[in-house]
Amino acid sequence: MPTTTISAPARAVRANRARGAVRARSTVYAYETIALGRTLTGTHFIDLTEHIDAAVAKSGVKNGVVHVLSRHTTTAVTINENEARLMDDARMYFAKLAPATDFYLHNDLDRRSGPADWPGGDEAWRAQEPENCHAHLLSMVIGNSETIPVSEGKTTLGTWQSCMFVELDGPRERTVGIQVVGER
Amino acid sequence: MPTTTISAPARAVRANRARGAVRARSTVYAYETIALGRTLTGTHFIDLTEHIDAAVAKSGVKNGVVHVLSRHTTTAVTINENEARLMDDARMYFAKLAPATDFYLHNDLDRRSGPADWPGGDEAWRAQEPENCHAHLLSMVIGNSETIPVSEGKTTLGTWQSCMFVELDGPRERTVGIQVVGER
Amino acid sequence: MPTTTISAPARAVRANRARGAVRARSTVYAYETIALGRTLTGTHFIDLTEHIDAAVAKSGVKNGVVHVLSRHTTTAVTINENEARLMDDARMYFAKLAPATDFYLHNDLDRRSGPADWPGGDEAWRAQEPENCHAHLLSMVIGNSETIPVSEGKTTLGTWQSCMFVELDGPRERTVGIQVVGER
Repeated sequence: MPTTTISAPARAVRANRARGAVRARSTVYAYETIALGRTLTGTHFIDLTEHIDAAVAKSGVKNGVVHVLSRHTTTAVTINENEARLMDDARMYFAKLAPATDFYLHNDLDRRSGPADWPGGDEAWRAQEPENCHAHLLSMVIGNSETIPVSEGKTTLGTWQSCMFVELDGPRERTVGIQVVGER
Repeated sequence: MPTTTISAPARAVRANRARGAVRARSTVYAYETIALGRTLTGTHFIDLTEHIDAAVAKSGVKNGVVHVLSRHTTTAVTINENEARLMDDARMYFAKLAPATDFYLHNDLDRRSGPADWPGGDEAWRAQEPENCHAHLLSMVIGNSETIPVSEGKTTLGTWQSCMFVELDGPRERTVGIQVVGER
Repeated sequence: MPTTTISAPARAVRANRARGAVRARSTVYAYETIALGRTLTGTHFIDLTEHIDAAVAKSGVKNGVVHVLSRHTTTAVTINENEARLMDDARMYFAKLAPATDFYLHNDLDRRSGPADWPGGDEAWRAQEPENCHAHLLSMVIGNSETIPVSEGKTTLGTWQSCMFVELDGPRERTVGIQVVGER
């Protein structure tokens, strides 16, 4: 049977209304760009659950939501079980789903130009630009944003769920955006 | 041409400001964990649209948003057309996209251990643990959270769209998280 | 090291509490259905970044979030780099990931019926209905909703990220839902 939790703030609002009050709680919008440091080579997973739980605790939000945003075009965010052998299966699966060695137009670096103000010009840009089209494609398939409700001060993830950052073209310096929205 | 709806609360705020008032509406955060019961074998879809519409109606929210969260690591949520033959196509497509019979490290149960406090120990855990790596991978590809705006008391889904829970490793007892956030 | 931005409204709330005030800011819920016009044939991308930035600016929201919803069952939304050759790679990749020419039950139009009130009945419905099962499947894989935090009046997308609408079965008249939620 469906079970419903009416949040404490909602009850407070009802009580306030019952006595004619007009006071409303303020909404917290606590956004952080979290630096994940330099990632490992190729594809791998970084568990964000501790970062997310810490952000919720620091915000003081009791009822609200957490938004997680991958901030790069060759990374992603996902929710699944952080089990070591499964993470290796996923790395192999993604390598088959969009093979790095297939032919891609994006990897024809000699037919592309870098930003107009790149130091050293196009040659310098090409020398550092990776052939990473497969990582862009996987980023679109896995997805770049996840939203997790917060109830009674805790995320509502299931028992075996972790929210993870997916590096698809490491090593690189990476960040992730975490925003806690809600009421204390 | 783009059309814009400025919400009724936004108009009320403008009117309040015009007369120097400082009253703000309260935000509703109505989170429910909905029990879906025991699912069918293998992969199939459960339409959540009625659950979502009921949650919006019960919350009284006129302008806001609905967040839907798959709470298991071998399930997902998606938005598409709930057409019977398409649902069968999707079941067959997912079976090809990540075949259950491929080799996966996660399925080597004899090389894995269960939780330390599992009744009966690792042998008992292995006896009940499914070989379901394909379902984890599909969960990451399909995704675990969807967000749907609510305007004038209704979700803004398109004509043919339904929000659906995707069972990828049934039969199991499953739940889904539905949260309505917004103003009455 | 992680860096944290505590939003200006949150600081204002603390200051208000310190002096015993009870005033709360109002939340803006600005939802728009944006008409994208008639799309091109087959699969292609439409960059929504300008629409999103305009919606945030128009709303006046300084701290909040943007929700983007694909409102059709053969379209999607994604976040990635809007680079011309990459977009062509993605079109070719999606064509391989779910080939239009594979056998699908959904494409057996002579075994399906249209809506009961379709003008001209089932024959007329079948004559206009596309064989587009591959587009439905790709819509589920790519995803239909994205959420992007807004901080200090700007989306928090990374340097190379664009939010894009993905047409998977053009040409058709399409819309996309954009909602800005937050505080001015």
